[in-house]
Formats: sequence, structure tokens, C-alpha cells
Amino acid sequence: MASTHQPIEHHQQEEPQNNYGVLLNKINDLQIVELPIPTPGPGEVQVQVKATGICGSDVHLWKYGEIGIFPVTKPQLLGHESAGIVTAVAPDVTDLRVGDRVAIEAGIPCSKCNQCMSGRYHLCPTVLFKSTPPYDGLLAKYITHPSRWLHKLPENITYEQGALLEPLSVAIAAVERVGASFGRSLLITGCGPIGLMVLAVAKAIGVSPIIITDVQPSRLEYAEKMGADYTYQVNPKLSDVDIARDIRALTLDSEGVDYSLECTGIESSFRSAIMATRDAGTCCLVGVGKNDQMLPVNNFAMREVDIRGLFRYHHTYPRAISLLASGKLQVDHLITHKFDFMEAIKAFETAADYSTGAIKVQIINNN
Amino acid sequence: MASTHQPIEHHQQEEPQNNYGVLLNKINDLQIVELPIPTPGPGEVQVQVKATGICGSDVHLWKYGEIGIFPVTKPQLLGHESAGIVTAVAPDVTDLRVGDRVAIEAGIPCSKCNQCMSGRYHLCPTVLFKSTPPYDGLLAKYITHPSRWLHKLPENITYEQGALLEPLSVAIAAVERVGASFGRSLLITGCGPIGLMVLAVAKAIGVSPIIITDVQPSRLEYAEKMGADYTYQVNPKLSDVDIARDIRALTLDSEGVDYSLECTGIESSFRSAIMATRDAGTCCLVGVGKNDQMLPVNNFAMREVDIRGLFRYHHTYPRAISLLASGKLQVDHLITHKFDFMEAIKAFETAADYSTGAIKVQIINNN
Amino acid sequence: MASTHQPIEHHQQEEPQNNYGVLLNKINDLQIVELPIPTPGPGEVQVQVKATGICGSDVHLWKYGEIGIFPVTKPQLLGHESAGIVTAVAPDVTDLRVGDRVAIEAGIPCSKCNQCMSGRYHLCPTVLFKSTPPYDGLLAKYITHPSRWLHKLPENITYEQGALLEPLSVAIAAVERVGASFGRSLLITGCGPIGLMVLAVAKAIGVSPIIITDVQPSRLEYAEKMGADYTYQVNPKLSDVDIARDIRALTLDSEGVDYSLECTGIESSFRSAIMATRDAGTCCLVGVGKNDQMLPVNNFAMREVDIRGLFRYHHTYPRAISLLASGKLQVDHLITHKFDFMEAIKAFETAADYSTGAIKVQIINNN
Amino acid sequence: MASTHQPIEHHQQEEPQNNYGVLLNKINDLQIVELPIPTPGPGEVQVQVKATGICGSDVHLWKYGEIGIFPVTKPQLLGHESAGIVTAVAPDVTDLRVGDRVAIEAGIPCSKCNQCMSGRYHLCPTVLFKSTPPYDGLLAKYITHPSRWLHKLPENITYEQGALLEPLSVAIAAVERVGASFGRSLLITGCGPIGLMVLAVAKAIGVSPIIITDVQPSRLEYAEKMGADYTYQVNPKLSDVDIARDIRALTLDSEGVDYSLECTGIESSFRSAIMATRDAGTCCLVGVGKNDQMLPVNNFAMREVDIRGLFRYHHTYPRAISLLASGKLQVDHLITHKFDFMEAIKAFETAADYSTGAIKVQIINNN
Repeated sequence: MASTHQPIEHHQQEEPQNNYGVLLNKINDLQIVELPIPTPGPGEVQVQVKATGICGSDVHLWKYGEIGIFPVTKPQLLGHESAGIVTAVAPDVTDLRVGDRVAIEAGIPCSKCNQCMSGRYHLCPTVLFKSTPPYDGLLAKYITHPSRWLHKLPENITYEQGALLEPLSVAIAAVERVGASFGRSLLITGCGPIGLMVLAVAKAIGVSPIIITDVQPSRLEYAEKMGADYTYQVNPKLSDVDIARDIRALTLDSEGVDYSLECTGIESSFRSAIMATRDAGTCCLVGVGKNDQMLPVNNFAMREVDIRGLFRYHHTYPRAISLLASGKLQVDHLITHKFDFMEAIKAFETAADYSTGAIKVQIINNN
Repeated sequence: MASTHQPIEHHQQEEPQNNYGVLLNKINDLQIVELPIPTPGPGEVQVQVKATGICGSDVHLWKYGEIGIFPVTKPQLLGHESAGIVTAVAPDVTDLRVGDRVAIEAGIPCSKCNQCMSGRYHLCPTVLFKSTPPYDGLLAKYITHPSRWLHKLPENITYEQGALLEPLSVAIAAVERVGASFGRSLLITGCGPIGLMVLAVAKAIGVSPIIITDVQPSRLEYAEKMGADYTYQVNPKLSDVDIARDIRALTLDSEGVDYSLECTGIESSFRSAIMATRDAGTCCLVGVGKNDQMLPVNNFAMREVDIRGLFRYHHTYPRAISLLASGKLQVDHLITHKFDFMEAIKAFETAADYSTGAIKVQIINNN
Repeated sequence: MASTHQPIEHHQQEEPQNNYGVLLNKINDLQIVELPIPTPGPGEVQVQVKATGICGSDVHLWKYGEIGIFPVTKPQLLGHESAGIVTAVAPDVTDLRVGDRVAIEAGIPCSKCNQCMSGRYHLCPTVLFKSTPPYDGLLAKYITHPSRWLHKLPENITYEQGALLEPLSVAIAAVERVGASFGRSLLITGCGPIGLMVLAVAKAIGVSPIIITDVQPSRLEYAEKMGADYTYQVNPKLSDVDIARDIRALTLDSEGVDYSLECTGIESSFRSAIMATRDAGTCCLVGVGKNDQMLPVNNFAMREVDIRGLFRYHHTYPRAISLLASGKLQVDHLITHKFDFMEAIKAFETAADYSTGAIKVQIINNN
Repeated sequence: MASTHQPIEHHQQEEPQNNYGVLLNKINDLQIVELPIPTPGPGEVQVQVKATGICGSDVHLWKYGEIGIFPVTKPQLLGHESAGIVTAVAPDVTDLRVGDRVAIEAGIPCSKCNQCMSGRYHLCPTVLFKSTPPYDGLLAKYITHPSRWLHKLPENITYEQGALLEPLSVAIAAVERVGASFGRSLLITGCGPIGLMVLAVAKAIGVSPIIITDVQPSRLEYAEKMGADYTYQVNPKLSDVDIARDIRALTLDSEGVDYSLECTGIESSFRSAIMATRDAGTCCLVGVGKNDQMLPVNNFAMREVDIRGLFRYHHTYPRAISLLASGKLQVDHLITHKFDFMEAIKAFETAADYSTGAIKVQIINNN
């Protein structure tokens, strides 16, 4: 452990002149504010954030003042999908240098508890996850972060791609959670950003065939262009049983899909996903919806369909980087809009407006 | 494959003189009837059934004329928890001999489908499970069965114990389904026959500590004598959240149990079992209840508690025999009542009458 | 089960006029011979074989008169990498029709033993594997085979690709045996046909980075074109320790590869593969070499590197078909030579001659 | 993190008056020396060590001046199997109090590296394992240790049992490493302390049947009293093949054991353990022997027997405590000799002398 009497080694490329952040002052009140330039503490580095994606949860915090069980209790920065360049390192940091290009893993677990020591650091009960209240997020020009939770980017990965590693991590974790493997069938319900990210990952790793559903034909067309083997337009007038039967009809011997990932958060969609899964298959809830839901218990129990849920991700960054660097995973097209940092409010408005057709909106900091 | 022109080799101990069966004629109409003595077909042996336990599903078929999705459609024999002695073998059978003492595995899978070939023969869509409508059960003095689905009993296992292998198989499958391992904590909700069988198995394999719940103090006392580490009397006036909190308080750092097995079929019990399970733990439904149940979805999803169900068992008999033969598993005390075969109706009445305190009622055929 | 008195339903496209086979008469004595046209027994279909690949083991049987523990004991047909068209079906066969295009899974397990019922039918002790002595192989114009072990080909898969499914199955089984997953690193030692098949599969499922080794630069170049991330030319003068160190240097923080697949059968290559695998990684022997080998036991034991071997494959055909059909897997280029059926001897000579640069030689039956 | 300016809170029962340790000065030179009383640093507690077992590796360090790849490079304390009572805590420690009875987990991993964060902290490349050179061991009257790696003992576990948790951890890790489960067969080669510990654990968790081997009849008798189902006296004149055949003959249908644990470190014993394991079983090396060993590669590869090794243990203490506290595990009889701390040299002489019949020798500190 570095002595706190040693000076911080500011091997900076160029001294940061000022700092700005995207602050959620309170519900419906988002501002760009000037901030002090943060100094890295022991084990930390200072990062100039270059690209940050806007997540649905950021928009939700802005518009509703809470996300899940976490209410906004004080002004805080938003953003947790970021990549940037190292601009200073604390004296005790040996694994990163100034000038390193990095993706930022937003959650900082305790590394000591049973969950952390068992390889499930995403379930650490005292994890500090940036942008989840009450912690500041990453939407600033300069932030500090423990070097342990930064991941070096190879040269052939851009900052924009680096910022996509966070939603890709969710998709990877989802695919891992059901154990989806190549040459086996997957149902994805919903063509929102997460559903499409899951599609991209599943396609890149040979999961096949992939069936994806949505209510909107335009989104299904997009999914088809991305390589979905079957698209299915959900008719809301049909029952969950009927929808499940239709989906099963697309699978080998109508046995149902090996895995299903529910990406809408809608109860009836979860129900049909369960019923469309083959005996001894696995269905995982990725979308977040109502706390209590009426599930077809005997249907999944007597057929031994495992039901799971997903909470964030763990150990995904190195694998996501490896997959991107290999050229197997093409996801740039999912970034539909980019805004300069000082236009961040406009970026949020675009992400919040369904009519823009935005999949992923990113905020770019070019200097 | 033996030619059907070869004579069946009747190496019998003594020629069967007559045969009787316990026939469910129709709902609420159970009779002891005379039957022809069955001849083993290719791959089959004839077994003189010596002991048969009555399952809750047998009683349910008798009283309600259906079990789950299977209605009684024609007169049929009941019973699927049986052990006996081989009295004749088909010419092509080489793995069993007349005089062998055997437990009968009641389900006969196709051995060809994807589920069978993947090691999950319990999910074979064309399994013939004896006593599940429309198939005859094992409650006869003589039956035939494929030798592949008979399991030789070592000398130190009695027929009564042999007949217990079937409910023990359910308990073993339940414990396997959650991956319960030694030195880790388990919640069992309900002290009925299945709950107590699960307790016996879990205790025998070092799962620890074991918490078991019920509404009745007398049943909890019985469970305590069997070695439950904690018993918890459910107060029906408490909410599922409160019950879960009480159970968690019994676990290390109140983190919740590693595994939970719901053995009552009651929705509120399932809900509290889910909530009492630690983050990244597993909760399995063993009891059968309502088709649709309101589950605490975000509770299990955000904490990554896996939800599973159980359908029968597979590959359990050899392991159950090994466990019994080793002396690790003491279950004789669970057989609370025995009746002679010709008193089978009385046996069913006892099993159906809650006030008898019966755990397992067996029908014994001494000649 | 069909009665043997019912007539076989010969719904043939056109009646087969004659049949020929590639017979290994004895060591070094390969002949094309006329054969009777086989009639499908119960559960079987007749297949006109359209394409068959030559495996190294076919060549080995021809040149050495044995393969592993199996000596050639009588004249037999060779070949086990085949696809064709159904030309007749037994009356009891309902899952296939005349005209169906199929890949032939050469091994026929008993479907009853413990290994079969546990999902490991490749380890069935009484498996009948076509072309492994003393059983006839598939190199004939017409053969019969159980319908259970035929796999329908979708229209977008050719017979040649269908015949590749067998070596692809080995590659898939190898990848499965080490649990290779996307975004994790893999070492493949050897650029022979199996090494390259493994490379193709690993690439298709996002395993990354992939390091492949060989002594020959030309083969490494081929592997690089196929997408290997790193190629490493083995210098036979270097020690296994030095080679392992060089390979580790290509991995993140020199920790070693997550998985290694030894595809040469050479002891020193196995040793360096073990040592190049990271702590808690897995190393699997795919190539077949000496019975006894001097392994670095403390190296793998103290680092908890798991050591495995591979025996054929199981449950691979449906997944291989799915992967091929999705377009993820490009393997046509591995078929370097094709010969007409009546030129089969020449095909074998080509496959046996190292200087031809042959990767996969196929024998095609166009009528 | 506690400031180092705050005073250490010495809530001691009684102030330690002096401290002594068992110092390995150099090879063959063991001394009891006076030591300063250690002060707990941040996150640490001071423990009065009450009981310490002598491990074979302690004796090896004393007699050979090295263990595996670790030479003794400077005088150091021995011992890593210890339990004691907390006598002081650093100000930042909240999970332990003075007076708590604890077992000491000797290895202190970094909690940050990939292995630690993946749940495999035993493979941490920078683990500080007490008594492994160059680190001091636990054989002192007072030591300090991070509270994170101390485990509270329930009242019904004695200090002597607490000190057994370390070798029990090895046995638990061994059983876990092969995935040994109840009602399945296990071969243990060797009735030394580790073999017997493994036997005790395997018996407690229902693994059955258990076959154990040794060359000495007296040790086999001891194992039989402990509950081994079969004992097999190894005749050193027999080949490994013959010994394997004899052991297989003790298993169901002579298929071989499901799991084997090699506890002697002898090459021929490892070879016969591999060959005695059933197809698709698992064989793990627990005993430490020669670096390079001639293994029957095709035997294990073609039968898909997995070969593993074991390095220490991880996550075992809570489970071992739970198992001991439940009364399932009886291991007191394995402590064959106890010596007062000031007679530690005599304790080491007893442990080193094969003729004493010592299984586990403990050094007890009563004040």
C-alpha cells in the first residue's frame, strides 16, 4: 500500500484545465455543471472520459427520480457506460499508465465478502455502483476510478465501442446466465437496446437458431438484418399460450427453445417465454417489470424449466473486449446517435423520445 | 433379441397359483380383484410384489379421479412404490434371475428420444409410468416389468425398505435439483411424508444446518427427533415477508439459506421459501399446488435466486440403494402402518385419514 | 416394433441397380467390390451414400491393419464420414421418408446401459461404430442404418458438408470437452485436419484469442487465413518448457491459455500444452499417441489444470447442422480433394500422401 | 480503513505476559524461542493459539529444509493447523471480539487478482500462506492474523477440533475436486492422515461404497473401523494393472469407481487409481510425489476419465465447521498424540517417527 505522504505522480499528457459533469439535480432537473478536477486516491487513476452511452436507467432516474429500490436522495452525476484515457495515476498503481485507453467498469465491489470471494462480485451487498443512487456516475470530463476496475482497450477498439462494453456486458451476462451455447436455440423477447445487444452477442457466439419477438415490424426488420433466424410479431390480442405455441412451432419438432431471455419486463411476455422453452430448458428474466407476477408454476415445474433472473454482470469486460477485438462482434450500428458532451441534455432528450428510433445514444467528449 | 418362438423360461420358485390386484374401478371405487397371472414379454421379468407404499397421488386418484393433468379414464391398478422377488424371466433376460430381490422403478422411458439420450429419462415424453392413468400400477401380487427398470436389492435391505426407495428417490431428486451439498444450509417447508424424506436424505449426506417448517408442533417435534437443526412453526397470520425474515434470522449473518425445498404446494409457502433463500441460492418447488402463482419476481431476479421445479426422479435407485446399504440412511421409522395385501382398502383409508398420523402406509404381501 | 411379416415398404425414387463398396480385404489390400443391395431391418432405412470423407483412421487401418486396440480381423468396408439420401424405409420408421437428405452418425449405441442413459452414449461399451473393426464402414453406394442415427440435412447444406459433420463433430466435442467459451483463449497444437476443424469451430463460436502451433510455416499460414489470432512455429530443438513459455507470452499477463487442445499425439506437444495452460485451466488430448506418456504431474496438479481426453463425440450432429445452416461456420475450403466413388483407391492414396497437402479428401457418388 | 493514528483497542482478557514460538532455525534445527508479543495491524486481530496440529509438510521442512518448490531461506516459525482465542482486535475490526474462539485459515490471498475474484483464492499467485517459506507459521503462543481469515467456532467445537479443520479442509477440497456425491463409489489409495481424513469426510456425506487401500493391514483395520466399506491390501509385487482389476472387481458390474483420490504420492498407485476409475469418472492426485510421472494416457483419454490435482483448499472452513457442529463428522480419534507447547520438539519427533503409529499429533497451549 502506498504511503499517503508520497506525492501523486501526475504524469499527465496535458494538465486538465477544467471539469464538467451531467448532474441530476433532482427529478426532471438535469444540468451541465462545472466540477473540481478529481485527484486519484490510493489504487485509483484519473480518467478523461471520452464516450458515455445513455442507459434506460439513466433516463428513468431523470424522469422518475428513482430506479428500482433506489430513490435519488441528493444531486448526483449520471452515466455508467463509459470509456476514456488515463490522465493521472496514484503512486501505488502499477498496472496502468497515463495514456492507456480504458473501459470503465462502473461497479466497485468490496472484494472481501462471501459473494465477492465466491466469484459473484456483482452480488456484493456493499458494491458501489456509479450512477446508482446515492453514488455519482461517470458523466463528467474527468473522473477517478480504482485501476482494478478499468480495462485496457486494444488499439482496434474505439472509445465508442469501449463505452458499449457496458450494455454488451449485460448481454453477455444474460447469455451466460442461461448457459446459451452454439448450435442451440434461443428466444429473445423484445427488440429494445438490450434485446438487440443480446442478439448481437448470441449471433457472434454461434447460438442458432435465434428467434426474436416484438410488436413493431420495423424493429423486427432491424433484428432480421442483424441476423435473427426467425422474427415473430407479437399480436397483443393473442393469449400467452397461443404466442408460446406459435414460437414452439418455429423450433425443431416443436419442442420449444433451449433458452429464452425475456427482455421486455412485461408479465405476459415472461409467461409466454416460459411456456415456449423446452422441457429442461432455461428461461431468464432480463427486463425489469412488476415486483409480483403471476407465473405458470406447474408449467415450468413439471417440465423442469429453470427460471432465473439477471442482476448486472461480472467478469464480462475481458471477454467482451476479446470478442470485439477479434472482429466477431459488430455492434457499431447500434450507436444511432452521438452528441458532444456540452449537448448532453439534448442527448438525454433523444434517448427518452421513443419516436427518434434511438437504440444507443452516446455522449462524446472530444477534448 | 430373443425370438418369440422360444419358450419363456419359467424357472420359478413355486408356480404362482393366483393373482390379485388393487383396482381403481372409478372415482371413489377401489376394489381387490382377481387377475390373470402375467407372462413376461421380451426383456421382462415376472415379479411377486412383496411390499408397496401408498403415495399421496394414489389417494388423490382414488378420491378425485385424476392427478394433475391425468384423469382416470378406465379401471386401473394403483401403486408405484414397490419391491418384490423375481419369479420368472423371459429367455432374453440375462441380468436377473429367479429369486433375485428387486425394487421396481415404476417409470419405463422410451430410451430413444432426446431427453432419454441426454440423461433425463424422467422427462421422456412417452414414458410409461405405472399407476399414472391410463397405465396399471404395481399393486398386484404378480406383475411383469422390464428387467432394465428393476434394481437388485442387497441382502441387508428389506422389501419394506425397497418399497421406500421410490419416495426416497423423490427426496434424492429434490436434493440433487438444488445441488444441496454438505455443510451448507437447507430450508424444507412442510413436514409431510416428502418433507420428512427430504430431511432424512439431507441429514444422511451432511447438509447442515437444516431448517424445517410446519404449522403443527407435533410434526416439528418428529422432525427434530430426526435431526433437523432448527424447526420453525409457521404462524399463518404472519406475512410471507415476515416468515422469510424469521427463517433468515436462523442462518449465518441472516444471509438466508443456500437451498430451499418447498414441500407443501402452498403459494405463500413458496413465496416465503424464495425470500428466505440467500442471494445466488436455489429454491425448488417439490410440492404440487396451483397452476398459476403470484411470485416475487424482482425479489428472486435481482438477487439471482434460481427457481426450479421437480418432476419425479432419474438415476436415483442405485444411489438410494447404496446409501441405504451403507447404513447412513435410517428411514424405517417413516413406515408408520403396514397392512396385509387383502386389507389394502383399509390401508388406503388409513393413508387418506389425516387423523391417523400416518407418514407412510405400506401394503405387504407375505406369500 | 414392426412385425417381420410385414413387407418392407420400398418407396424408392428409383430402384438401386447395383451396389459397390470400398473393402479393406486385409492390410495394404484395398478393393472396390460389388455388394448385395442391403435391405433395411426394423427401425432402419436404406441410404444411397453421396459423399464420404476419408479419415486418418481409415488410412491407418489400410496401412497398419489396426487402429488403437482394434485389429482388422476380417475383410470389411471402410469409411464413417458420410451423407446421403434415403432410398427406402422399414415399415416401422416414421421419422424419415424416401428422398430425405441425411448425415449418417456412424456409431450405434445400445441405448440401455448406464453410459447411454446418462447422456454419454459415445462411451457405450457395446457401441457398434461403423468402420471400426470388425464392423463394416459406410463406403458403399447403398447402406442401411437405424433411422435414430440419421440426421436430416436442411436444404442449404450440401452432401459434402454433410459428410464433414463427422470430423466437425470431433472438433465440437473437443471444444465442449474443455468447455471453451467465447472471449476466452484457446491453444490448438497442430494444424492437421483435426486441428484445423477445431480452429474453424472455435472461431465460429467466438473463442478468442486462438493460438495455433505447427512445425510447418505453410500450415500456419493456412491457419492464419482461417482466422487464428496467433500462429506459433514450433522449433523442435526447443524444450517443452521453453515452448510453453513462448506460448504463455502471447496471452494476457502471460497467465497462459484458458483451454488447450492437443491435436498432434506427440508427447512433448502434450507436455508443452499442459504447461502453457493457465492455473485452473483445462487441457485436453485430442490427438492419439503413445499409451504411456511422461507427464508433468506436479505442474498440472499444483496449478489445478484439469487433464482430459476425448473419445469420439455425442449429441454433436444437431448442433453442427444448426451451426452450418446458420452460415456461421465456413468449412468447404477444408475439402481439398474430391474423387468419384469408382476412383476410391486413388482417393485413399491421396489422403495417405503427405506431399499432396490434402486436408480432407472426399469420395463422391453422383448416381 | 482505520487511521493508523488511532490507538489499537486492547480489549484483552488478560494482558499477554510473554510469547514463545517453534522456530525452524535451519534444516534439522528446531527450537523453542521467546518472541515479542505481536500487535494487530489494520484489519487484524491478535490470537492466543490454543491447539496446533503438525502436518507432514512441517516435518518435511524440518528434516529436508524445503517443501516442494519452497526452500527454507531464513529462520521461520512452523505450523498452519491452528485454533485459538481472540485476545486483541485492531480498531477497524468489527466482525470479531476479544474472547471469540476461532480457527485460523493459514492462507491470506490478495483478494484482487483474477483467481481471487473468480472464487479460486487458493490459486492466488501472491497468497501469503503461513509456514510456507519464507513466511512464519502459527506455532507461537500469540500471533496476529487478518480477521477475514479467522472463523468463529461454535461452542460445541473444541480447539483441538478447530485445529483439525485445516487437514479436514484438504479432505473436503479433495472430495469436492472430484465432485464426490452420496451413493456413489470412491477409491482412496493410502491410509495416511490425509487418506483417513478423506475417509471421514466421505463417510459423513454419504459417499458409498468407499474402497480404501494400503500396504499395511493395521492401517486397513483402522480404516475399516472408521467405516470403509471395502479395504484392499496392496501387494507391491502385483502390477498396477492387476491392482486396478482387483479394485474394479469390488465395484458394481466391475465398472470401476466413480471417483478416486490418490493419497500416497506413489506413481504406481496413481496409475492403478486411474485404471480403477470407471469410464467418465474422475481421478484426483492428492498425495505429492515425483514431478514427472509415466501415466497411462490412452487409458484415461479413451475412457474420458478426468485427471485432476489438488492445491490446498478454498471456502472449506465454514462448511467443515457446519459439518462438525452437526455431529455428522467424528474425527477426534484421529488425534493420537497431544503435547504441551513447551514440549513441541518432542511432538515433532513423534510425528516424524513412523513407528509411533501417530496419525495426528497436536501441540496444546493451555495458558
